[in-house]
Amino acid sequence: MIQKYVFGSPIETDAVVEDIPVSGEKLPFFELTGDNGFLYQLAEKDIVYGLGEQVRGINKRGWKYVSCNSDNPHHQEDTVSLYGAHNFLLISGEELFGVFFDYPGSMSFDIGFTRRDTMKVLTSDFNLYVYIITGENEKEIVKQFRRIIGQSYIAPKWAFGYGQSRWGYKSADEIRTVAEEYRKRNIPIDSIYLDIDYMEHYKDFTVNEETFPEIEKFCAEMKAMGIHLVPIIDAGVKIEKGYSVYEEGVRNNYFCKDENGNDFTGAVWPGRVHFPDFLDPEVRKWFGEKYSILLEKGFDGFWNDMNEPAIFYSEKRLASVMERINELSKENMGTDGFFEFTGLVNGISNNTGDYDCFFHKVDGKMLPHSKVHNLYGYNMTKAAGEAFKKLSPEKRILMFSRSSYIGAHRYGGIWQGDNKSWWSHLLMNLQMMPSLNMTGFLYTGADTGGFGSDTTEDLMLRWLQLSVFLPLFRNHSAQGTRPQELYRFENCEDCKRMIEIRYGLIPYLYSEYRKAILRDEMMYRPLAFDFREDEDARSVEDQLLLGNELMIAPVYKQNATGRYVYLPEEMMLVRMRSPEDFETETVEPGHHYIRAELNELVFFIRKDKAIPFGTAAPDTARLDTSSLRFIGYPEAGYELCEEEGTSVLHMFEEHK
Amino acid sequence: MIQKYVFGSPIETDAVVEDIPVSGEKLPFFELTGDNGFLYQLAEKDIVYGLGEQVRGINKRGWKYVSCNSDNPHHQEDTVSLYGAHNFLLISGEELFGVFFDYPGSMSFDIGFTRRDTMKVLTSDFNLYVYIITGENEKEIVKQFRRIIGQSYIAPKWAFGYGQSRWGYKSADEIRTVAEEYRKRNIPIDSIYLDIDYMEHYKDFTVNEETFPEIEKFCAEMKAMGIHLVPIIDAGVKIEKGYSVYEEGVRNNYFCKDENGNDFTGAVWPGRVHFPDFLDPEVRKWFGEKYSILLEKGFDGFWNDMNEPAIFYSEKRLASVMERINELSKENMGTDGFFEFTGLVNGISNNTGDYDCFFHKVDGKMLPHSKVHNLYGYNMTKAAGEAFKKLSPEKRILMFSRSSYIGAHRYGGIWQGDNKSWWSHLLMNLQMMPSLNMTGFLYTGADTGGFGSDTTEDLMLRWLQLSVFLPLFRNHSAQGTRPQELYRFENCEDCKRMIEIRYGLIPYLYSEYRKAILRDEMMYRPLAFDFREDEDARSVEDQLLLGNELMIAPVYKQNATGRYVYLPEEMMLVRMRSPEDFETETVEPGHHYIRAELNELVFFIRKDKAIPFGTAAPDTARLDTSSLRFIGYPEAGYELCEEEGTSVLHMFEEHK
Repeated sequence: MIQKYVFGSPIETDAVVEDIPVSGEKLPFFELTGDNGFLYQLAEKDIVYGLGEQVRGINKRGWKYVSCNSDNPHHQEDTVSLYGAHNFLLISGEELFGVFFDYPGSMSFDIGFTRRDTMKVLTSDFNLYVYIITGENEKEIVKQFRRIIGQSYIAPKWAFGYGQSRWGYKSADEIRTVAEEYRKRNIPIDSIYLDIDYMEHYKDFTVNEETFPEIEKFCAEMKAMGIHLVPIIDAGVKIEKGYSVYEEGVRNNYFCKDENGNDFTGAVWPGRVHFPDFLDPEVRKWFGEKYSILLEKGFDGFWNDMNEPAIFYSEKRLASVMERINELSKENMGTDGFFEFTGLVNGISNNTGDYDCFFHKVDGKMLPHSKVHNLYGYNMTKAAGEAFKKLSPEKRILMFSRSSYIGAHRYGGIWQGDNKSWWSHLLMNLQMMPSLNMTGFLYTGADTGGFGSDTTEDLMLRWLQLSVFLPLFRNHSAQGTRPQELYRFENCEDCKRMIEIRYGLIPYLYSEYRKAILRDEMMYRPLAFDFREDEDARSVEDQLLLGNELMIAPVYKQNATGRYVYLPEEMMLVRMRSPEDFETETVEPGHHYIRAELNELVFFIRKDKAIPFGTAAPDTARLDTSSLRFIGYPEAGYELCEEEGTSVLHMFEEHK
Repeated sequence: MIQKYVFGSPIETDAVVEDIPVSGEKLPFFELTGDNGFLYQLAEKDIVYGLGEQVRGINKRGWKYVSCNSDNPHHQEDTVSLYGAHNFLLISGEELFGVFFDYPGSMSFDIGFTRRDTMKVLTSDFNLYVYIITGENEKEIVKQFRRIIGQSYIAPKWAFGYGQSRWGYKSADEIRTVAEEYRKRNIPIDSIYLDIDYMEHYKDFTVNEETFPEIEKFCAEMKAMGIHLVPIIDAGVKIEKGYSVYEEGVRNNYFCKDENGNDFTGAVWPGRVHFPDFLDPEVRKWFGEKYSILLEKGFDGFWNDMNEPAIFYSEKRLASVMERINELSKENMGTDGFFEFTGLVNGISNNTGDYDCFFHKVDGKMLPHSKVHNLYGYNMTKAAGEAFKKLSPEKRILMFSRSSYIGAHRYGGIWQGDNKSWWSHLLMNLQMMPSLNMTGFLYTGADTGGFGSDTTEDLMLRWLQLSVFLPLFRNHSAQGTRPQELYRFENCEDCKRMIEIRYGLIPYLYSEYRKAILRDEMMYRPLAFDFREDEDARSVEDQLLLGNELMIAPVYKQNATGRYVYLPEEMMLVRMRSPEDFETETVEPGHHYIRAELNELVFFIRKDKAIPFGTAAPDTARLDTSSLRFIGYPEAGYELCEEEGTSVLHMFEEHK
């Protein structure tokens, strides 16, 4: 059952697409705190799931979180905000319910941080919708929630192929080399991503003709090799006379305004920019249609970036900081002065104070950005998604975004933002999957191998062993870090075999992905969602159920020879070194230490289940789906859900 | 066997105190790389132990490390330097040997980072001693190494009591309140630490008479309550006319010099300071004797801080940065200019470039700080340690330092530096214990509950469950973070019981601590040191053997209901909620999931062993050691090693 409550005068976010009458009853479960907040008493064993893209574990208890979309590539254990705002929680324990706080401004969640037994949710003002969802079990609650927020975006099948990316590919020639290196070694690959360097001075919808000459031809050349090029699109529009996007935006008042009604100026990669007011449908239409410039050149996928929006500096703040520094430097700066100085400088970028200094037009009224901050990236992606329906009705276009809010899931996927080459971020990648699935983000994954910081050969290989199971499977890294294309490593052969296994898994993965979307289900679930009464299953933080057939349990610790795995029921362990080289073994329910050499992918098939498994292919277009094998329990069948329809397969050969 | 090799003209560090003739043979195991480095081929299963205070796991494989003492309170997975430099490695696998690179400048260790099969050790110049130690097993190699570096400092027994600290106790009254809050609740406590605020304008060896009036009386008042006050001593000496330490230092040329022979000026907490040249024995004597000012007031313990040395800014660098900022701000700063600006500002503090701009007098020659950087904190602690022998020959004085080098272990302990209230730092605390023990640092521990960032109730309680077993047991936190005195938490009672258990453990812990020192042994060991042939034991990264009787395996994950533990042999599990409330149970060898409620301390007694266990006491002085109980296997005896001598105890009552 879903009950809708209204407090104050909420801003419409369009997160919920179903028309639900406002409940006349008292808000259940929560107590109003009187300071724009909601209080819930947590029982000792309650688990709090949710919050979508956030730090820490599957169980969110014991920390404080702030929904305030942030560009924080250095996030760690005590971070409170990431790139998305997904205000959905699912409380499971003494009571069982889901709750969605539909509120586009900054809000905080103290989930047993201040007091272990208390959850307190605070909004900046008390204008919001609250949806309470009750049901028989966790899966049923999520299903109801997913239904009211609308069907998730479906990515094209090729987006399930492996993708290579790096911030730092400076030219078509560099990209060509990457493509050739992959093809030369027969490492399957479907896409190469273009980070900001493909643009002319970081101007949206331009291509640098010197470094990326004849881009149509280059797209075609890559496509002939089976490779899709996926360019980045940034939120900010460069201020440059003669640049059509800038000039049109100014002329039509498409940019966010400052206090005085002038176009607000911040600085990002292109230098000084204006920010399109994506909350205005007319602006979305205008900006969305711009993607056609690149679609026509042969691109068929995009990633939207810097759309929290990230702001290196606002002109106004920079000027005031500079003024104060000038004063301080005259004063014979003491320790206090020094810390004021460094504090000011480190407070320039992404300062939330700036969010009160620029404005959006919403229903004819000017609203400060702070009131709608978390909707910005969402509406940029919506701009693209709405346009694609018109521009390319027949063909699925790949679209994923960095920043998001619930609702954005209808228009694209997200990647989990700029992460680090840290073992802890490999685990976090896994832990975010269920909470993202709850809120409709099905096409997702993290930068495999880690974006910032230097990766290592073993971290990359272990990360691949998680990412082979995730929809968005992209190896991405930052300028200045160790290059991490797979052929850079001594163990390239082992990496290659993992990618081959991925291609073998694609028929299954894409089928489960489609099912999850079409049925409003979670593709990735905590063990406790299927084994509700199992106390041990409830505390597992490093394994996931995938679809209805698999349990994944990657190794995420350096130098580990294996890992502990909990089996709530008998399962079949698969130990795979390549699509052709694997063994299976039945494992009893309970706790086990499972050995896994660095080059071994270990996963589990659930009792009486089986998965279809293909063979390696250079790319998804060349996948041979006519000769799927089965891996799993001999008597099991599998319902294959393809673009063309659903068919039930039965095991036609004994597994090895 | 120990072999000593000499390359170039090494600077004497006095890390090694035994006279060892230089070997005429070729350096074994390593290949010289020709670029001031050493190369070792790692076999697939080799484990590399060592490096003392460093990030990452017990097994150091798969990362790069730099020995360059650094003030980095934000250290994380990809950090390369911490507060100490402990260039000892122990390679265990195809070959077995220890190696000590006795080199006081910055040096790096690529331990299977660039290539998994290669370890490369690089020095800045090739002037160093290398010691190769071979032996029958890991413990024997460590024992030999510990013998040549000299006996470790022995802390007084009261230093095994619980200590409360916070950067931010502004007055004697605040300290008094802390003491009263602990005593009121009968939470045992032996010490309260004074961070920088007790000083007058952060001047070493001064006490602020306004906020800490009549300090002798206050020391006596606290001592009457059973509480030792432990003040901090910083490395930098405030530049202030009339301040005697400053004036004496200037008069006698006791400070480090700049290029022009003037006293080098940096800024730290007091503002502008000079740095005593601790490498000069005359300066050590002078500075060491200053501790008597505080000893005479009634203090009997100290912690040396900021002695990497931490430098907020050098005058010269700050001036040049300011000049460049001034230029940039005139230029209509673009994105590049902005990043240059923020990069410059963030590069001011602890810039290693400054280490070439100040100088030490070593054997009559002026050496740039960079050549001897890692000896600075060591020699500050040596100054204190040498002085204490003269000033207080009869009484053990507590001394521990932030920065260190091997050799400093003879004069004091170390704490593991400014850490964070992170679960990952709880694990790192455990993982550093064996590597620090290898290099002689026996009196050590980390800031329990975490220094920076906000702690949580459960993190604190779980961290206590590790720290009850560690010599240095201090709860310390930073200004601006959530207060973390135990009485701040709802679960104060549970915390209190952990501290009570600590006091019950002290007879055992202090005995094992003394044994480890007197016998050159490790008090904390990886499982593989005692179970060499056990493949499973070799990969355990989150359990330690403690002394000869215990195995500890704390829970270090939030919301965990227990943890996995590997038992290489049968052991007795002890599940303890208070010194009086516990059960034991025999557990078979193998892998187990062990439940542990938040208020339960779980540890293991090794087969056929037992430990003496006392009762709670308000402080160590009031410990009743006359009625020790035994916990463990019924037939076991225990050799108790006390200050007064060693006695063998036998179980005189059955354990519950």
